[in-house]
Amino acid sequence: MGEAQLEDMDEKDGVCRSLLRNIMLLTGDMEHLDSHLQDWPVALQLVVWGLRGVTRVILANNPLSGALILSALYWTSPWQCLLGTLGVLTSTLTAALIGLDSAEISGGLHGFNGMLVSLLMGVFSSAGDWYWWLLLPACLASATCVFVNSGLSTVLAQWNLPASVFPFNIVIILYLLCTGHQHPYFPHHYVPPAWMLELNATAVEGVQVMLGIPLGVGQIFACDALGPSLIILAAVLLYSPLLAAHALLGSAMGTLAGLSLAVRPHFLYSGLSGFNGSLGCMAVGGLFFTFSWRTHLLAVATAFLSAYMDIALSNLLGKVGLPACSWASTLTSTLMLLLGGSLSTYRIPTDEVRAPEVNLHCQAQWRGGKASRRGSSHV
Amino acid sequence: MGEAQLEDMDEKDGVCRSLLRNIMLLTGDMEHLDSHLQDWPVALQLVVWGLRGVTRVILANNPLSGALILSALYWTSPWQCLLGTLGVLTSTLTAALIGLDSAEISGGLHGFNGMLVSLLMGVFSSAGDWYWWLLLPACLASATCVFVNSGLSTVLAQWNLPASVFPFNIVIILYLLCTGHQHPYFPHHYVPPAWMLELNATAVEGVQVMLGIPLGVGQIFACDALGPSLIILAAVLLYSPLLAAHALLGSAMGTLAGLSLAVRPHFLYSGLSGFNGSLGCMAVGGLFFTFSWRTHLLAVATAFLSAYMDIALSNLLGKVGLPACSWASTLTSTLMLLLGGSLSTYRIPTDEVRAPEVNLHCQAQWRGGKASRRGSSHV
Amino acid sequence: MGEAQLEDMDEKDGVCRSLLRNIMLLTGDMEHLDSHLQDWPVALQLVVWGLRGVTRVILANNPLSGALILSALYWTSPWQCLLGTLGVLTSTLTAALIGLDSAEISGGLHGFNGMLVSLLMGVFSSAGDWYWWLLLPACLASATCVFVNSGLSTVLAQWNLPASVFPFNIVIILYLLCTGHQHPYFPHHYVPPAWMLELNATAVEGVQVMLGIPLGVGQIFACDALGPSLIILAAVLLYSPLLAAHALLGSAMGTLAGLSLAVRPHFLYSGLSGFNGSLGCMAVGGLFFTFSWRTHLLAVATAFLSAYMDIALSNLLGKVGLPACSWASTLTSTLMLLLGGSLSTYRIPTDEVRAPEVNLHCQAQWRGGKASRRGSSHV
Repeated sequence: MGEAQLEDMDEKDGVCRSLLRNIMLLTGDMEHLDSHLQDWPVALQLVVWGLRGVTRVILANNPLSGALILSALYWTSPWQCLLGTLGVLTSTLTAALIGLDSAEISGGLHGFNGMLVSLLMGVFSSAGDWYWWLLLPACLASATCVFVNSGLSTVLAQWNLPASVFPFNIVIILYLLCTGHQHPYFPHHYVPPAWMLELNATAVEGVQVMLGIPLGVGQIFACDALGPSLIILAAVLLYSPLLAAHALLGSAMGTLAGLSLAVRPHFLYSGLSGFNGSLGCMAVGGLFFTFSWRTHLLAVATAFLSAYMDIALSNLLGKVGLPACSWASTLTSTLMLLLGGSLSTYRIPTDEVRAPEVNLHCQAQWRGGKASRRGSSHV
Repeated sequence: MGEAQLEDMDEKDGVCRSLLRNIMLLTGDMEHLDSHLQDWPVALQLVVWGLRGVTRVILANNPLSGALILSALYWTSPWQCLLGTLGVLTSTLTAALIGLDSAEISGGLHGFNGMLVSLLMGVFSSAGDWYWWLLLPACLASATCVFVNSGLSTVLAQWNLPASVFPFNIVIILYLLCTGHQHPYFPHHYVPPAWMLELNATAVEGVQVMLGIPLGVGQIFACDALGPSLIILAAVLLYSPLLAAHALLGSAMGTLAGLSLAVRPHFLYSGLSGFNGSLGCMAVGGLFFTFSWRTHLLAVATAFLSAYMDIALSNLLGKVGLPACSWASTLTSTLMLLLGGSLSTYRIPTDEVRAPEVNLHCQAQWRGGKASRRGSSHV
Repeated sequence: MGEAQLEDMDEKDGVCRSLLRNIMLLTGDMEHLDSHLQDWPVALQLVVWGLRGVTRVILANNPLSGALILSALYWTSPWQCLLGTLGVLTSTLTAALIGLDSAEISGGLHGFNGMLVSLLMGVFSSAGDWYWWLLLPACLASATCVFVNSGLSTVLAQWNLPASVFPFNIVIILYLLCTGHQHPYFPHHYVPPAWMLELNATAVEGVQVMLGIPLGVGQIFACDALGPSLIILAAVLLYSPLLAAHALLGSAMGTLAGLSLAVRPHFLYSGLSGFNGSLGCMAVGGLFFTFSWRTHLLAVATAFLSAYMDIALSNLLGKVGLPACSWASTLTSTLMLLLGGSLSTYRIPTDEVRAPEVNLHCQAQWRGGKASRRGSSHV
């Protein structure tokens, strides 16, 4: 090869590398954004905080993923997307108003519960889209989430546990209990249990069950259409490929669990049987534990346990017409974070949790550091 | 003016002042009583401890208020008053018997849960007044409250939280579950949920709703007549005007919350929709937080949240025929005590809680002290 | 007496003594076994760990008692005995697999919850004996118990509380909720509440009620035949006579509580009304508290409270067709362990709990030590 060719390749290589570096900058936690953010106007900062909050629902933390998810929600239903946006903004502003920790607010930690509550209030409402009165309880419920989140965090900090989506689960159940199915102002749908004796049971169709697996990822945002679900999956992929793989894996395990207990076919087809498994699998596989073969197996176990617990809870709550939301995955992953024994050595302290790939890298560096220190102590 | 007149005025002023001082001695926590109390016979001491216990229900701590409240209860129903008195004495004696902290016993901290349980057992009983067999479970339940209170306090002490009326709420639910509506020995009334689809709904009457606001204060003692409710309000006023204002304010907020969700008219008229708001508002506004504009707004938010949560819980528990008691206000005010961020700086440690006015005074002194110390450090 | 006779007596005495010493070695915690155990093959070690696990259910810790209990269960139903054995082995192996503390594993602390879950799954199943598919969920549920136990222990360690049978109670309720009465794969019996309005109520028969008292001890292992129940009682007696006395006493108190609230006759006859009282009485009387008159009275109170709470919970859970299991006794004895005041000085730290007789001996020694030290300090 001549020198010109070599230079040309070097140049191409350089362009590729810088392109790759720029793409890399858009993935993961995008912490570099925070340093630029201080000079931006407050309204724009709030948008970034909100977008981070949107991704916190699927355990990610990346504004671009947040924008992708919002577009997926807009595709599903503009009205629900509006409610979700209102929720994330209301709860982030409430947190700022009552003087909570500003680092938590800018990380979107006070937004995601409010977003989920507002979104789900729209999904469960039987008053139809654009029923403007719903904005009032949506704002109130989102603000309530901030209080519940702060109080619960104080309690759980004793065991270094995150409050996670407990506030959402508590507030949405309280809202649904307040109103009831035939309420004159805020009526909502009746939610049947996961398992029901069907008189004319039909055979379960394989293809539809397979389609339920990606839908399980979408169901985390109560979205049951394939297109938006794939966009949401892409948003997770942008944040972390490892997390996206666990999301799909968990949803598949959840569907298997549903099949093994003969739940209603609609429960399988709509992804409802998969989304708790998906959330549980994501939390344990890579996010709160350093990725390894042992924690990978633990993630699979968490997915199964979440899915079975979800069936149990939706059978219980279905008796009073309530949904099980994501109680199962939240309880299960909290349980796994509490595990003692040798598995707890893989646990990453709640404050230091980053994207799975970064966690893995930090762990390797830290081990390397320990090893070199050991080496030097031998000398 | 002649000297005689001046002297006369001075004398009058002096009389007024000493009168005022004497009146002031009857308000607030009446801690000066404790020093005299040691020389009194034990039976009289027990009476004072019991009276303090009676007022702890409405977050006050004043023997005279306790006597006022007992007279109000006697006016409502002598039988229920007897049950309440028996309850407060039984639980105070049980606490002394199992060797709990004597300062807590003399402060009435072990009496109020037992009193509420006995009182409510009389209210819910459908066997009619003067059904003497009821004294047996009333004594047992009051004694149980002491155990639950002591155990729960150990758990909650981890976060510097009071056990509050959790023991009462737990024990009364267990008692009602034990017996059931058509029980041969201890039958009780069926409690309908807060919200019900009424076939021939009538318009809500404004005057009766307004009357429900003072009744909401009385409902803390399960009293739904106006006269006794006003006496109970006067008992709170005697202890602390700030607390009385918050009691009425909270009840009004609770009624508003009830109106906004179209609860049964009887729920509004009887004060049932107000009493949880009242309790929540009292706890946050002045008692556990130093009074200021920020905590005042927090108290209003607590009142709303308590009232909505009460509607939710009474809808849930109503499905199995159980009352929601004061679960909502107890949970909500516990949540507010756990809040992090800048609001937690207003929090008064549980041991140092006095009457709101004293709290305010202590806080001012303490700040003054800090300021002067700062000043001296500059010199 | 001649010298020959004296020598003969000495010899006889010696034989008696060594026999007694050998018998004594078979009672209590049998800690001397652990030193021999290290040289045994792993499979045999696992058997001992499993047998210890079997006895942990009735708060004992003795491999011989475990063998006795297993034989009693085999007498009742070989199929249920197989399920129980599978459960204790699965959960012990799971604990070893996920790397939990080996001292806890060899003490059987990870086996008893799994055993109870598997056993009860067989009892509640309405698919008949030798329904082999049941082994699958039984193994899964036993393994789940290990996770729940480890997580719960981390939380409860904050107050030096044992996880006790909470994991069993949680997992069995979740399993029963997952499947439901008419489930195509895993159907189970409908469990009626403790109290029901019976249309043609018959008088309660005294003899059958008396027989319910020893059956209450058997019901801890869901066994309602007299013969096996007596063997189980003998197993407790082998471990500790004091514990066996409290087991019978607690069961009697529970039966009394059931009579006082007019529960279904079958609830009394089958020992169901006694077993929670029995468990509560055993835990407090001698095991977690040093035996004395005060703690004995506390044990009686715990038995009553457990029994009443069991009636309440089985009325509540019976409304959705679920059993109350041993929630009542677990909650009540946990409450008693949390008690403050002078009773807490009798509390034995969870790690140092041995057989009641050993506890008593240690306490006496420790007091003696303290007294002699005091004496020496005087000199």
